[in-house]
Amino acid sequence: MDLAILGGTIVTMGSRGIIRDGAVVVESDTIIDVGRSDEIKRKYPRYERIDAGGKIVIPGLINAHQHAAMSLLRGYADDYPLREWLENWVWPFERHMTGYDIYVGALLTAVESIMGGTTTVNTMYHYLEDYNEAMAFAEVGLRGIIGHVCFSWRKDHDRKALEELARKWHGKVNGTIRVSVDPHAPYTVDPEYMRKLRAITSDLNEKYASSSKPIIWHTHLAETEDEARKTEGSFGVTFKNGIIDYMNSLGVLGGDVVAAHCVHLTRRDMETLKMRKVKVAHNPISNLKLASGVSPVPELLNSDVTVALGTDSPCSNNSADMFEVMKFTALLHKGVNKNPTLLPAEQVLRMATIDGAKALLWDHEIGSIEAGKKADLAILNFKKPHLWPLYSEVSHLIYAVKASDVETVIINGRIIMEDREIKTVRVEEVMERAEKAREKLLERLHSR
Amino acid sequence: MDLAILGGTIVTMGSRGIIRDGAVVVESDTIIDVGRSDEIKRKYPRYERIDAGGKIVIPGLINAHQHAAMSLLRGYADDYPLREWLENWVWPFERHMTGYDIYVGALLTAVESIMGGTTTVNTMYHYLEDYNEAMAFAEVGLRGIIGHVCFSWRKDHDRKALEELARKWHGKVNGTIRVSVDPHAPYTVDPEYMRKLRAITSDLNEKYASSSKPIIWHTHLAETEDEARKTEGSFGVTFKNGIIDYMNSLGVLGGDVVAAHCVHLTRRDMETLKMRKVKVAHNPISNLKLASGVSPVPELLNSDVTVALGTDSPCSNNSADMFEVMKFTALLHKGVNKNPTLLPAEQVLRMATIDGAKALLWDHEIGSIEAGKKADLAILNFKKPHLWPLYSEVSHLIYAVKASDVETVIINGRIIMEDREIKTVRVEEVMERAEKAREKLLERLHSR
Repeated sequence: MDLAILGGTIVTMGSRGIIRDGAVVVESDTIIDVGRSDEIKRKYPRYERIDAGGKIVIPGLINAHQHAAMSLLRGYADDYPLREWLENWVWPFERHMTGYDIYVGALLTAVESIMGGTTTVNTMYHYLEDYNEAMAFAEVGLRGIIGHVCFSWRKDHDRKALEELARKWHGKVNGTIRVSVDPHAPYTVDPEYMRKLRAITSDLNEKYASSSKPIIWHTHLAETEDEARKTEGSFGVTFKNGIIDYMNSLGVLGGDVVAAHCVHLTRRDMETLKMRKVKVAHNPISNLKLASGVSPVPELLNSDVTVALGTDSPCSNNSADMFEVMKFTALLHKGVNKNPTLLPAEQVLRMATIDGAKALLWDHEIGSIEAGKKADLAILNFKKPHLWPLYSEVSHLIYAVKASDVETVIINGRIIMEDREIKTVRVEEVMERAEKAREKLLERLHSR
Repeated sequence: MDLAILGGTIVTMGSRGIIRDGAVVVESDTIIDVGRSDEIKRKYPRYERIDAGGKIVIPGLINAHQHAAMSLLRGYADDYPLREWLENWVWPFERHMTGYDIYVGALLTAVESIMGGTTTVNTMYHYLEDYNEAMAFAEVGLRGIIGHVCFSWRKDHDRKALEELARKWHGKVNGTIRVSVDPHAPYTVDPEYMRKLRAITSDLNEKYASSSKPIIWHTHLAETEDEARKTEGSFGVTFKNGIIDYMNSLGVLGGDVVAAHCVHLTRRDMETLKMRKVKVAHNPISNLKLASGVSPVPELLNSDVTVALGTDSPCSNNSADMFEVMKFTALLHKGVNKNPTLLPAEQVLRMATIDGAKALLWDHEIGSIEAGKKADLAILNFKKPHLWPLYSEVSHLIYAVKASDVETVIINGRIIMEDREIKTVRVEEVMERAEKAREKLLERLHSR
């Protein structure tokens, strides 16, 4: 569709900065022009118009760490000690999840994400052939990277799943779906398998991807304090310098790795992450809820490491709300470091947009509003008491906006939500399907 | 109005716990019955009905620390060092605020508060005769305690303002407005004046209040690390054991003191707060944003100190959203103490409801849904993707609800918001007035 979005304040997150009474022109899936409304009106008189007068247009937010399927567990268990939470609640539940449950859970998360202005989600879960997260994202129209999570105990299964995932989905759905190889974590993937997954990734990239559209890695790293010890215990390895050094010694770290969490880091670790160009996905809400600790984000940024933001799963958050993640990010590091100048609003907004895109190696296409990029946009209404008065759009976006202020969302040039109505799926039906899936799942769980 | 709210899940926060398919009956300003819908329908056949089928009814939230007028500064300045923020931004702005600006700012905050399910706000600002926060709350229909903030440099002015405030407003507007005496902080109120304010408070209580409807204190206490040093510097006093001990030695601490912040406390301080029955208003978002630190809330709760929750001002938060404050509270203390069982959801909900009421010495009338209490209620819609599925109402209320999920708000038996429409004032007009006030204020500021 050819569209001219006119009259809004465009927060480009690109070289044009903020354009007041600005406009964005979209042809098919691509932004072809960004400028002032009056110029754009003259240049493109016959384009279908979206009136964004008085509204704020931002690049769609990028959620760099999610397990989309897990919405079925939202609020299922909170406030437990970590081990009890996992062993008595999360894992038994997940063991009963079918491909269909994964698909339905991901549908629900995709809808929630879009309703909160998120247009790209990097998700790690189990890939199954019959039903999966990729199908759900494609159905709703959400851009995403769909991973298959790998464990030492199912190498054969993983190999087939990765091959299938890459072949069927990488670069598909008009380029909105990409895939990733997701070693779960150092303590669940043995060193040999970790290296093997590198070889598999190279192989898959050769067969199904290209340098501008790579198959990346997505993993958990340095989430909890005892990760090194757990890894030593799991695989009989020993190492002196912590988990990052160990991963580096395996030769698996690189610019294509999205490492979720990175809470427990030494200065040496940060240098290694920088040297290897590893991208960090920071999940402040999940890290607080699971009591993992507080990631040294200011130091990571000082070390020039790219830090993106993620919600983590709907059962460790319990929202897919990137505005909330941005507010937590901006505030948490000020507070614990006793420095109110840390993580200023604009920097945090970059982390959720252009730096998120960089983390996913997708920044030539998404993360900012610039001619030539894909049209992934969120339009917000600021004419509300809680966003009034207005001094700075960026301040409001970080400190005052709620997910519900997002009115319209465009992904890859397609209007997916308009005036808060999702256009691609019936939201009530998604909710009904999720509820039925949950009920059946609980029946299976309790009849074991 | 006589009302029967039927079919919802009633989260009473009182002795009845959670009542599914429950009902609340309101006569005039008071809850006269709470029970199961079917019984209530039979007992009260002719009451006007509100269908809350599938919805969640909670006691209106209580914001225990706010400066309502300051919404005119929302997003005016963020991310600065504290001193620069105050001296170059906030204070110069505030010096140009008129009574009318205070009134209009408070109108805006009152509307925002109600739209987020808050029904009682404890606010500290300057009381002026012509226009003030009390007028604004009364106009919108918000319950509140209106303070007048006192400083050593304006004792005469304070005395008159307090007298006027108490005489005109305490217990007025059908009992929804109370007033408080608000010594600003230990470093701005000299020791003699602090004691004098105690005497004034006794005097005002005798003239205008009663033991069931007291005029309380509202002050800032132990917000920043250097508060003892600042106080010593301000008044040439010296003290060994920190700011709480100093205040205790003045004989001004008591069960009627709401002490906002209490970030920097020793174990001895907590014992003193407990012994004196001081109530703490915890403001996690403001404490993080201004980099004051993290209040030892788990230890305060262990010491049996009543801890309520507050947003603090719209310029140190920048929202009046108590749901956000609850999520921050539940997560922050888990994370920094590395213990995921701290501040479980139900405890946090108590802090924002019944414990808030206790902090304001108002719990015989508000803070829970029980027969005999005033009807302050919020009705929420959970049929939304981000609140789906539902295992636990309380978990969702803390970890997943957004302010925008509140549909209907009743204060003192009056429907103030219905289906998100404010009934008492025209919201657009409030916003226009705020915008005009802000423009004029900026003109005055820049023409100085």
